[in-house]
Amino acid sequence: MNRDPYLLTPGPITTSLTVKQAMLHDWGSWDADFNAVTGEVCRRLLVEANAEASHQCIPLQGSGTYAVEATLATLVPTDGKLLILMNGAYGQRMAKICDYIGRRYCSLDKGDYLPPLPHEVESILADDPAITHVAVVHCETSSGILNPVEQIAEVVARAGRRLIIDSMSAFGALPIDAQTLPFDALVSSANKCFEGVPGFGFALIQNDALAAAKGQAHSLSLDLYEQWQYMQRTGQWRFTPPTHCVAAFLKALDEHADEGGSTGRLARYQRNRDRLVAGMRARGFATLLEDQWLSPIIVTFLAPQHPNFEFKRFYDLLKAQGYIIYPGKLTEADSFRIGCIGKLFDPQIDELLQVMDQVLNRMEIPMDQAVA
Amino acid sequence: MNRDPYLLTPGPITTSLTVKQAMLHDWGSWDADFNAVTGEVCRRLLVEANAEASHQCIPLQGSGTYAVEATLATLVPTDGKLLILMNGAYGQRMAKICDYIGRRYCSLDKGDYLPPLPHEVESILADDPAITHVAVVHCETSSGILNPVEQIAEVVARAGRRLIIDSMSAFGALPIDAQTLPFDALVSSANKCFEGVPGFGFALIQNDALAAAKGQAHSLSLDLYEQWQYMQRTGQWRFTPPTHCVAAFLKALDEHADEGGSTGRLARYQRNRDRLVAGMRARGFATLLEDQWLSPIIVTFLAPQHPNFEFKRFYDLLKAQGYIIYPGKLTEADSFRIGCIGKLFDPQIDELLQVMDQVLNRMEIPMDQAVA
Repeated sequence: MNRDPYLLTPGPITTSLTVKQAMLHDWGSWDADFNAVTGEVCRRLLVEANAEASHQCIPLQGSGTYAVEATLATLVPTDGKLLILMNGAYGQRMAKICDYIGRRYCSLDKGDYLPPLPHEVESILADDPAITHVAVVHCETSSGILNPVEQIAEVVARAGRRLIIDSMSAFGALPIDAQTLPFDALVSSANKCFEGVPGFGFALIQNDALAAAKGQAHSLSLDLYEQWQYMQRTGQWRFTPPTHCVAAFLKALDEHADEGGSTGRLARYQRNRDRLVAGMRARGFATLLEDQWLSPIIVTFLAPQHPNFEFKRFYDLLKAQGYIIYPGKLTEADSFRIGCIGKLFDPQIDELLQVMDQVLNRMEIPMDQAVA
Repeated sequence: MNRDPYLLTPGPITTSLTVKQAMLHDWGSWDADFNAVTGEVCRRLLVEANAEASHQCIPLQGSGTYAVEATLATLVPTDGKLLILMNGAYGQRMAKICDYIGRRYCSLDKGDYLPPLPHEVESILADDPAITHVAVVHCETSSGILNPVEQIAEVVARAGRRLIIDSMSAFGALPIDAQTLPFDALVSSANKCFEGVPGFGFALIQNDALAAAKGQAHSLSLDLYEQWQYMQRTGQWRFTPPTHCVAAFLKALDEHADEGGSTGRLARYQRNRDRLVAGMRARGFATLLEDQWLSPIIVTFLAPQHPNFEFKRFYDLLKAQGYIIYPGKLTEADSFRIGCIGKLFDPQIDELLQVMDQVLNRMEIPMDQAVA
């Protein structure tokens, strides 16, 4: 391979060369030039969610999980209670976070791949007045499902509770409008649909919720209230930011805008997904989910039942041809995942499908027997 | 300025172009190629501290403060007690962390710039048997002082207590030998003396101390025991790592070795410091500290008493000529700081001094009156 492999994963994803080249400069983290970069990043993220009037954007060093933990700890009071809508690893992770940080929670666990339904949420909230907050994963990449956050937000608001959306793998492609979708917090990270490099996450937090959050966090590093206060006062991050990653992200936001914002990006990802799913189905592969739940972020395919199929070998052969796919994360069924996000276009999807043919051939898995 | 400004700060610092160019590739965070990079980084850091047989290296996403918080929370049991040796912002920050994470602590506070003395530590430990751990900042960049960690480690070990060293701004330049300097943990980060880019920190933790640390951390994201367990099992970081920063760090470690490891790097930093201090003194500036406490990392200079001196203007004029210095962080005296670390050599120090002359001239501060 003369080129780097394409990353068909839920992130880190393949970024443009120009985004990476934005990392060829060093920045003083205390300096006004860098503060301006941070300020502009936050401003544009708020604009993207139509949230300038209602929310603050607070970036946080670390992975997306750090931002989720920080948001839960900063916003859910110690005497609050969280309802976690689970259908995969990221919902389960929020429960684990609550165990660590000592917040009460209950969950609606839909297993591996079923969506939480609005009426189910409504009924749980009606039955348990102690629940103060609800958390939902926008796109649960464990299965690739796109959860119905709009309907859930409506139910949560009607019940007078507060919503926290883990939109890690969705914001930047799936449209978010804070003026019609009521949420206290939306959490995401740099290296997903905005196509930046990994190094930090961020939360958009509703003004009043944030103002009420002083002293709630369990951790100095993960205290979003203090991060916000300090940034308001100084324009700086409290602790050393990943300066190169932040600079790259501003470039990524430029390119996001050039593509037509979330609308343009979503269209490309949907096209990637449709092309991928059609091609894979033509080869006999089956998707885990029905079409209506398939996200344009990542798609789970059931592993072929053929005795020659072994994921490790399949992965290595695809990688040798320049395509890195992703293992499955289901408890019940053997599967693998292929991402649709990142700097991927028709030619990459088409070439992947051709490579898939070669690999199946090499593994001596006849295509008509590759049915899951 | 046609070039980027030099960063004469305690980090992020000026890195080599080749280190930055190592970020021009995307990596799958799940992929074996990236796991090999992580493994090699950890191995080399252990070798650098002569700690392969006795310690584990655990990298952690986020800033250096995250790694300090994670280390304190993972290692100090909930019924433990920490003695914090303070002489600046980073010792104070450890106290703040203990307030957040609910660990008992006491402190030896030496104010802005005096070193904690071994006999003082000895006497506190003798008087308070509840103290289980002692924390010291190796180079406290608030003042630029190099604390006497070797003598303190000896006293702590003799008293049967455990030592945690915040060696953020020292490891990579100041020699560390885990076989003669007893410590339970040494914490540092990528963007200091190893001259990588910011995005993660790491801790070298003594094997037995780590094995005993299960279930102690207050935070999922900052649980170093779990990070270590997961990495042992899979070779991967638990959550998305800053892949580009990690790749850049491996390149930085190559260049560190090429310079003769910590010995070679320390020699350059000392030379930078000596050249800088001599030049500044020749211009009438005074250092905050006496020579014996001056670190080769960063030097604090007292602000000139001349009425024309205003730090903001001084900073801006130096920056316009391509040199970014650092504000002071003392509670008692007006000061500013100039770093000696990063890709800086004689020509940069010499040019900085020439620029300093121009700036003082422009500010109409006669050199013989610039005395602090």
